Amino acid sequence: MHFVRNAWYVAGWAKEFDHELRHAKILGEDLVMFRASNGEVAVLHDRCPHKHLPLSKGRLIGDQIECGYHGSVFGADGKCTRVPGQPRVPPSACVRAFPVHERHDIVWVWMGDPEKVDPDDVFDLDQLGDPEWDAHQGDALYIESNYLNVAENLIDPAHVTFVHPTTLGSDAHSEVPVRCDASADPIYTWRWIRNAPPNPFFQNYADFKGNVDRWQYLYLYLPSTAVIDFGSADAKPGSTEDRRDEGIRLFAVHLLTPVSERETIDRWMHIRNTHVGDEAVARVVDEMFRTAFAEDKIVLEAIQLEEEKPGAEPTLQLAIDQGSIAYRARIKELAEAELARH
Amino acid sequence: MHFVRNAWYVAGWAKEFDHELRHAKILGEDLVMFRASNGEVAVLHDRCPHKHLPLSKGRLIGDQIECGYHGSVFGADGKCTRVPGQPRVPPSACVRAFPVHERHDIVWVWMGDPEKVDPDDVFDLDQLGDPEWDAHQGDALYIESNYLNVAENLIDPAHVTFVHPTTLGSDAHSEVPVRCDASADPIYTWRWIRNAPPNPFFQNYADFKGNVDRWQYLYLYLPSTAVIDFGSADAKPGSTEDRRDEGIRLFAVHLLTPVSERETIDRWMHIRNTHVGDEAVARVVDEMFRTAFAEDKIVLEAIQLEEEKPGAEPTLQLAIDQGSIAYRARIKELAEAELARH
Amino acid sequence: MHFVRNAWYVAGWAKEFDHELRHAKILGEDLVMFRASNGEVAVLHDRCPHKHLPLSKGRLIGDQIECGYHGSVFGADGKCTRVPGQPRVPPSACVRAFPVHERHDIVWVWMGDPEKVDPDDVFDLDQLGDPEWDAHQGDALYIESNYLNVAENLIDPAHVTFVHPTTLGSDAHSEVPVRCDASADPIYTWRWIRNAPPNPFFQNYADFKGNVDRWQYLYLYLPSTAVIDFGSADAKPGSTEDRRDEGIRLFAVHLLTPVSERETIDRWMHIRNTHVGDEAVARVVDEMFRTAFAEDKIVLEAIQLEEEKPGAEPTLQLAIDQGSIAYRARIKELAEAELARH
Repeated sequence: MHFVRNAWYVAGWAKEFDHELRHAKILGEDLVMFRASNGEVAVLHDRCPHKHLPLSKGRLIGDQIECGYHGSVFGADGKCTRVPGQPRVPPSACVRAFPVHERHDIVWVWMGDPEKVDPDDVFDLDQLGDPEWDAHQGDALYIESNYLNVAENLIDPAHVTFVHPTTLGSDAHSEVPVRCDASADPIYTWRWIRNAPPNPFFQNYADFKGNVDRWQYLYLYLPSTAVIDFGSADAKPGSTEDRRDEGIRLFAVHLLTPVSERETIDRWMHIRNTHVGDEAVARVVDEMFRTAFAEDKIVLEAIQLEEEKPGAEPTLQLAIDQGSIAYRARIKELAEAELARH
Repeated sequence: MHFVRNAWYVAGWAKEFDHELRHAKILGEDLVMFRASNGEVAVLHDRCPHKHLPLSKGRLIGDQIECGYHGSVFGADGKCTRVPGQPRVPPSACVRAFPVHERHDIVWVWMGDPEKVDPDDVFDLDQLGDPEWDAHQGDALYIESNYLNVAENLIDPAHVTFVHPTTLGSDAHSEVPVRCDASADPIYTWRWIRNAPPNPFFQNYADFKGNVDRWQYLYLYLPSTAVIDFGSADAKPGSTEDRRDEGIRLFAVHLLTPVSERETIDRWMHIRNTHVGDEAVARVVDEMFRTAFAEDKIVLEAIQLEEEKPGAEPTLQLAIDQGSIAYRARIKELAEAELARH
Repeated sequence: MHFVRNAWYVAGWAKEFDHELRHAKILGEDLVMFRASNGEVAVLHDRCPHKHLPLSKGRLIGDQIECGYHGSVFGADGKCTRVPGQPRVPPSACVRAFPVHERHDIVWVWMGDPEKVDPDDVFDLDQLGDPEWDAHQGDALYIESNYLNVAENLIDPAHVTFVHPTTLGSDAHSEVPVRCDASADPIYTWRWIRNAPPNPFFQNYADFKGNVDRWQYLYLYLPSTAVIDFGSADAKPGSTEDRRDEGIRLFAVHLLTPVSERETIDRWMHIRNTHVGDEAVARVVDEMFRTAFAEDKIVLEAIQLEEEKPGAEPTLQLAIDQGSIAYRARIKELAEAELARH
């Protein structure tokens, strides 16, 4: 399995960065990161070319990194500006610098071909930055599982009944058919539960007269960002997806960063169109999601361990897997196309 | 090294099973086990064929297992009876079920070819179930060593002097020759110490007038069950093995379950023909064995680590190794014959 | 990478040995060691040839080792003298014994071809045993890094400014050029800081009138012993290395024992020509070195982890690396010459 390299991945929430060296591993590569005095985040390969000490073990001298072993100095662009003990800096003494873009309080890093970098490609969503909506950053959840396992879980409404019985799911949903548009971009799956009582969360924060129409829409943006739109609106015959803004909507956004072949960071946040600016509601939502995603983590880590056992047979494909099958096929295609170009 | 698969292995003491999912690893295979409402123990491969979540992470719905990820349901026979979200159950959605047999409060599982299964082959011993004898289940001792190392230790009286100086052995024995019938089934080794003072344990629980004849008989049943018959009787010229029932006999029974190539569970119990029904005596015996077997564990785990070092030369064969040599040869033969049939 | 086997390596400080079994690993080989009643240290391969139990898990019977599994007995020369249960000792029942030599309270073991052993080759230094000098054994520092990484650090004055800013180094040194005699035996590097204030340590223990000339001489004896001569003398135009005995000299001696490909024990001691016999000064010096070498350990272990990552590119060579480059080349030559003879 190869990673998709020509993509923007989340390096962290903007608030995590300041004028301090910070290590991260993304797509198996060790990176050193810091926010320079001009406010921009720099990301470099975390290894001095001389004796290979990680640069994150050195220190910042202004906006440059001094290696902690022999004091070679590197700028935010990766160029070496000083080698103590010799007047000339060898041209090969440089480290790879990675393009960075900050948007909506999230720092993204480009892990691929520098010639293909385009800040316009950074993930965006209309509701982010819209004053009618409230966006709230949650946790950076570390999951010992390949990111494909994590991502397919996020386009899979069928697991909710069984993995999240106390939070997001209920037995009533288990036979509601899941629909999928596997050729769309983003790939998405959805289902409607018509004319049913509101679930406890939506009941508490809305003023529904009676039964509601409930929906789940799960969007998966390549390579690894998911937006899950949960919502409820007063039950009405013939409702369609266009009517969603009449109700209460709560988005769970998952920004997946592959750390290694077997580790992923799932930075999740939520966006909602109700109780905008109400921190207490934000905390209630976060706590609900925190509980639910911890349940996913248990399942995803168990599956990873099975995957690593020798001689594991292929998984069985079911009707509910359409989104996952399409997603894995597209990732494979992207990764193979990148390899072919090398 | 290959395991002997066409054999009954211990899955656990009968008392360990109830209406709850329980994981075990036997011969490197992950199993999920539970006692159904009809009293029978079910053993299945511990992996849902869909996304490979271990079934032991799901839950029991009556006498069926519901997978904890997407709710597929499997019966005790491994057949899938429900896939939520689709009307038809795919024929390939099933998991392997393993034959089980319970005898003398021990649950055995058949790990091999289902066509060769025969409950009559489950290990038995006349003294088990005989009211003149008291059988007492001890511990499930986890040993990080290949089961062949553990088994050969159990047919090897020569180590007792050096590994168990404070419990089972004494310097006096070290030069008493060990005899072996390597062609018998079970393979067995033995030695007699004639006309010697009784050892402390037997002295405390018998009424010997003076010196005794002491014996150790070690029986090894393929693939991995050992019965060690320790005993003492009043010293008498010309005593033979037929006279053993005139004395006090104490059997240590070791039921070895290979977990992986480097792990074994040694479930041990004892059987005795003295103080039948006396729980206090049973506890004294167990405590003595618990101390002794912990000493074996140290040796067997150290040997395993040596075995795993690169470039280890072959072991040296001594006169005391007859039983072990015969045992390893027969296991090799059995395992190779099984492979040849595939 | 292969080890240099035809060499004396440190097995321990003499004071670490008494009439007790002790395990060590050197060049990846497990050894059992003890001091016999004649005062000589014996070193044997730590594995009984029978079932491979480490002999260090057995016990001393006089000056022989009794295996803890079946009681076979081995002398300090590795010959087997007893196998319980059989009258004849098989000729192949012996373990490898390693030549040992003790000098200046250090025990050295010869890991190579027994025909090439020569006690005259054991490392020596004029100042060891000289009553004008005080030699003080420090610690056995365990470092998870290949010994070549550790050794090259010891012939590298350039790292001192950056790794030891609070103890041995100062920014003032970083541009003083390092000189190297890469063809000498031992290889050595050096630099002089002329007419500068004494550093705090030398100031406290000497009576300098004003500025001093300071020096660092780093000698690397193959395969893995380093002597670092730090010193200061009253500043005088035209000083040369011959003048070092006019000042205060402090030697850090590092005796490296490769444990495995990724582990090294650095037994360090110091020798000084001031305050001879003053234990309080010895403790101050040790504490300073202990702090500094713990800083090296962090760097060397981080480098080892980088070295083990897949696909690591070669390190970059700088002007300061002359000593290290020469050292690694000579080790390679020695190891390859040994392999060629086999």
